[in-house]
Amino acid sequence: MTTPAETPTAQVRLPLRPGLEGLEPYGAPQLDVPVLLNVNENPYPPSEAVVADIADAVAKAAHGLNRYPDRDFHELRAELAEYLRVESGVSLAAQQIWAANGSNEVMLHLLQAFGGPGRKVLSFAPTYSMYPEYARDTLTEWVAGRREEDFTLDLDHARQQITEHRPAVILLASPNNPTGTALPLEAVEAICEAAATAGPRTADGTPTAAVVVVDEAYGEFRREGVSSALTLLARHPHLAVSRTMSKAFGMAGLRLGYLAATPALVDHLRVVRLPYHLSAVTQAAALAALSHRDELMSQVASLRAERDALVEWLRGHGLRVADSDANFVLFGLFPDRHEVWNGLLERGVLIREVGPEGWLRVSVGTPQETAAFRAALEEVLGW
Amino acid sequence: MTTPAETPTAQVRLPLRPGLEGLEPYGAPQLDVPVLLNVNENPYPPSEAVVADIADAVAKAAHGLNRYPDRDFHELRAELAEYLRVESGVSLAAQQIWAANGSNEVMLHLLQAFGGPGRKVLSFAPTYSMYPEYARDTLTEWVAGRREEDFTLDLDHARQQITEHRPAVILLASPNNPTGTALPLEAVEAICEAAATAGPRTADGTPTAAVVVVDEAYGEFRREGVSSALTLLARHPHLAVSRTMSKAFGMAGLRLGYLAATPALVDHLRVVRLPYHLSAVTQAAALAALSHRDELMSQVASLRAERDALVEWLRGHGLRVADSDANFVLFGLFPDRHEVWNGLLERGVLIREVGPEGWLRVSVGTPQETAAFRAALEEVLGW
Repeated sequence: MTTPAETPTAQVRLPLRPGLEGLEPYGAPQLDVPVLLNVNENPYPPSEAVVADIADAVAKAAHGLNRYPDRDFHELRAELAEYLRVESGVSLAAQQIWAANGSNEVMLHLLQAFGGPGRKVLSFAPTYSMYPEYARDTLTEWVAGRREEDFTLDLDHARQQITEHRPAVILLASPNNPTGTALPLEAVEAICEAAATAGPRTADGTPTAAVVVVDEAYGEFRREGVSSALTLLARHPHLAVSRTMSKAFGMAGLRLGYLAATPALVDHLRVVRLPYHLSAVTQAAALAALSHRDELMSQVASLRAERDALVEWLRGHGLRVADSDANFVLFGLFPDRHEVWNGLLERGVLIREVGPEGWLRVSVGTPQETAAFRAALEEVLGW
Repeated sequence: MTTPAETPTAQVRLPLRPGLEGLEPYGAPQLDVPVLLNVNENPYPPSEAVVADIADAVAKAAHGLNRYPDRDFHELRAELAEYLRVESGVSLAAQQIWAANGSNEVMLHLLQAFGGPGRKVLSFAPTYSMYPEYARDTLTEWVAGRREEDFTLDLDHARQQITEHRPAVILLASPNNPTGTALPLEAVEAICEAAATAGPRTADGTPTAAVVVVDEAYGEFRREGVSSALTLLARHPHLAVSRTMSKAFGMAGLRLGYLAATPALVDHLRVVRLPYHLSAVTQAAALAALSHRDELMSQVASLRAERDALVEWLRGHGLRVADSDANFVLFGLFPDRHEVWNGLLERGVLIREVGPEGWLRVSVGTPQETAAFRAALEEVLGW
């Protein structure tokens, strides 16, 4: 035996995977500030009735916590399908639903099943900054096409990118983060058609489809007349539409993301998921929250109205503002956006320095929080 | 626009990643049978007091569920460190603790950080059947050395395998699943020393360490005189010891796995984790359960005694039984183990058909459940 002082392993070098050196963990700064408008949370906490039902449901589940949970979360899938039927008018079977700990785990499952070395995931920038991380984590090559200056998608460019790269997965955020831009259904449909045989070729040369993922994390905030891509599911077996309970539902702390697709696509995700990935506690709490959907969703209309008013107010002061179908607004342009961000922070308002140079993103809060943001911005910009 | 009938994408082929074709999702059959002794669950449900505290803690957390959870779960890490201090006598800082949704997500993080294409993960078979799946999911090459006929490790063979393969990660289950075999500390120490410069080489040829992971999922069930590898952590910066709340703690439904290692190793895991991977509900429930550790752990002693009696009983009937430091027992040998497994199932007792040919694994249940297993086995084997 060697003594601790002579141990040969006191100085070792850990075998960190190439590509991860020097990287920092992803995440917005978590600062303790009175007005938090930086991570697109829903500002309305659940009511006492919702809290009580969640606690009851968890207590019931806790009696059996010594046992593993339902690996396929049948009841939760059925209830999520029912919620989507009410929200979007699209009928789905429980086997068409998949869920995981946040939609980022849903995305991981998608790229674990369909991505990987030698394969590409295509998106159109500026877009959600986690997407390249999912690619990195699954060793899938990240390819970013571009959005137009107003953050819409040029379909000719999109088709050209698809044909050129033959991606395994196409990620389309709609509404897009951080810009708020929703994709018209015609665009999603055109991309599905272009993607149908434009995925990677199998070993024997057969073309596969690129899986088209429409990330509707902020879907419930879409403006009147904007449709969900869920309405296209029946026609495109390589389409998946993801949602989350974090935003409209006001359940960011619960970590429940989900998607809808064909049962065949969902079955591929079941192979790569870790067994029992959704805890009994998560399943119980999510079911309880879903049973209060009317109440939890009731704030969506007021958040939309608040957003539309904020867009007008910012435009009224001569700023550029991206059209938003989400619960946040991208505005600019500032020669030194960091200075503006910092000025707001000094006044107790935390927003996000994200998106193309010169732009800032602010989440839509309560009327009081939005008022605090306006007052702070007026001071910072000397209006 | 095309009509649904003519849609060109009605028949598409999904771009499933090569290597996943035809695979089924991992998991033991979930059958509805009176006596469940198949997945090494703790048979004792939490008490009313534990259930009530979990519900209270979740209710408190639920008031803020519209916000994202603490990304780095500081409080939970500190309490897990405190638990390990009491359980194993090893003092650890909170920054030395990592946790995720089940220890299988902890393993995924380890292989995402240190494995990957061109890299190998080494273990010694027979061992936990999920290990090759973690390798597959992270595109790490799976290499299985062998265990001796009594399921112990031949250190010369282990060293030879390490030198030959230069693995990035070495997975050592102790107690091993499905055999119940614990590794002596001297063996872990010898492997750490052999691994210190035996990992992959960097681009400039510098040897790195192989990360040695001792999976102590069943660690609390170890017999008197068997030490935890936690006691070696201070001397080996490339050692990680994983634990879970699923087994001794009786919280399989909560999905809370964790590990202890150097802060530097933990920092690498933080880079590959998905942000907010541990929900506010999981954090709150785990903290509440940890505060009842004395009660939740009190069954461990009786489960150990029950296990030792079961081993003796099986041996008394002339069967071969692997020494067990876990809450399950591997026994055999049967010319047709499936017939024995099925005979037990017909009598309402579900065990697991796993491990080398001829062996069966039974979890240690309550005295009543074990009695039911004995009675059924007596009938099946005609004793």
